[in-house]
Amino acid sequence: MGETEGSRAGSRPGPAVVLVRPQLGENIGTAARAMANFGLDDLRLVRPRDGWPNAKAVTAAAGAASVLDRVRLYDTAAEAVGDLHHVYATTARRRFMLKPVVTPAKVAQDMRQTAAKAERSGVLFGPERTGLTNDEVALADAVLMVPMSPAFASLNLAQAVLLVAYAWFQAGPRMPEESLPPRRTRPATKAELENFFRRLERELVACGFLGNEEKRPSMMLNIRAMFLRAGLFEQEVRTLHGMVTELARRGREGPGGDV
Amino acid sequence: MGETEGSRAGSRPGPAVVLVRPQLGENIGTAARAMANFGLDDLRLVRPRDGWPNAKAVTAAAGAASVLDRVRLYDTAAEAVGDLHHVYATTARRRFMLKPVVTPAKVAQDMRQTAAKAERSGVLFGPERTGLTNDEVALADAVLMVPMSPAFASLNLAQAVLLVAYAWFQAGPRMPEESLPPRRTRPATKAELENFFRRLERELVACGFLGNEEKRPSMMLNIRAMFLRAGLFEQEVRTLHGMVTELARRGREGPGGDV
Repeated sequence: MGETEGSRAGSRPGPAVVLVRPQLGENIGTAARAMANFGLDDLRLVRPRDGWPNAKAVTAAAGAASVLDRVRLYDTAAEAVGDLHHVYATTARRRFMLKPVVTPAKVAQDMRQTAAKAERSGVLFGPERTGLTNDEVALADAVLMVPMSPAFASLNLAQAVLLVAYAWFQAGPRMPEESLPPRRTRPATKAELENFFRRLERELVACGFLGNEEKRPSMMLNIRAMFLRAGLFEQEVRTLHGMVTELARRGREGPGGDV
Repeated sequence: MGETEGSRAGSRPGPAVVLVRPQLGENIGTAARAMANFGLDDLRLVRPRDGWPNAKAVTAAAGAASVLDRVRLYDTAAEAVGDLHHVYATTARRRFMLKPVVTPAKVAQDMRQTAAKAERSGVLFGPERTGLTNDEVALADAVLMVPMSPAFASLNLAQAVLLVAYAWFQAGPRMPEESLPPRRTRPATKAELENFFRRLERELVACGFLGNEEKRPSMMLNIRAMFLRAGLFEQEVRTLHGMVTELARRGREGPGGDV
């Protein structure tokens, strides 16, 4: 089981996902897929109910072979986390242990920080029906709980893995929260906008829309503001020019065209 | 279709989830469950492939009936978003449209803000295989893209809904990122700690561990620091007292007890 191009080979290895006594192969596969979506590849299984390998897991993984191929098997949760420095236990309900209870976002931040110090983390997930035993939770430094609606607070195993993996990815090098698509065009320059506004004003005066000279400046200000708010691109300004040209031409030629 | 205790009845209605031509009932049900997990209840379906209602959706919803019971059906995506003020279109790949591309976290913040103004939002999700058509994406104010590992950037429909619903919940009234479990006990007071430290020092002197008077103060400082870092609870201090008492008693009585 050699190191691959996965996250472990990098300088900041991602956390291990430890599924303790998982029951359904589908959930193992879907969890593997969610890990691959967010750059994780260290999946550990503690006594999966239906043995290993598992055909249903392969189907559900939908091609996330890089994760399934590297799965490691353990007899106990304690053995599965033996090489880790920081361990979090997911639980669906509060347990009365004196452990911090942390959100996925906080766990992800902490794991990013410890990964930067080359310390390894892992998250324990219990069996579908019963969750982790108290002894297994006791292995953890903190309890990970996903904040949920109290009215319906049950999360599928693979969904829990998805949210933790997503939180890990989110806590990484920040992508912009909002971006424009790659430029096929560029924002219009102020000169291009100004050119359009003058053209527009000329045509609007010519057609009578801005006939009232007194009101004209404030009306033009409002029109400019409206177009400015749109953050127009160069291509769009050209389109607008074309529209105005056509409209004005029709206007000059008078009714009778195919409107 | 009366208003229930769901999020819409509140003063800040949650966004609508619009599944456009979904293929698998399982995905509809799992999406409904994810919505219920995070307090959403406005699910809209545009021409689901296998009709409606759908038995597989009910099974997969695993009890999230409050969402399935309120599903509304539409013929087109345009009709499904007709009453909304802000619409986001999820896409798996960049499309060359001049629309902002936003993360789930940003969309969730924006939707919380507009909900506070009683404006309604919705998120469009396309069919499993093909995604939304360009005309459907064109209905949206912005494109929602989940940041993912470029090596494996395909997300299941229900998982995409889960991440958006989770982001919505996360953007809501903040829960603490880290908390201690509900108090069965309380943090130890400084007096209780001091009492323990004095007791410990006495016993450590008596047993010879702190025999070196010169080094004693600095050794005790280190010992105190260690226990302080643990953030001890009252119950735990009592346990420690008991441990020291027993250890010291054995020590005084000398070897021969059952160690």
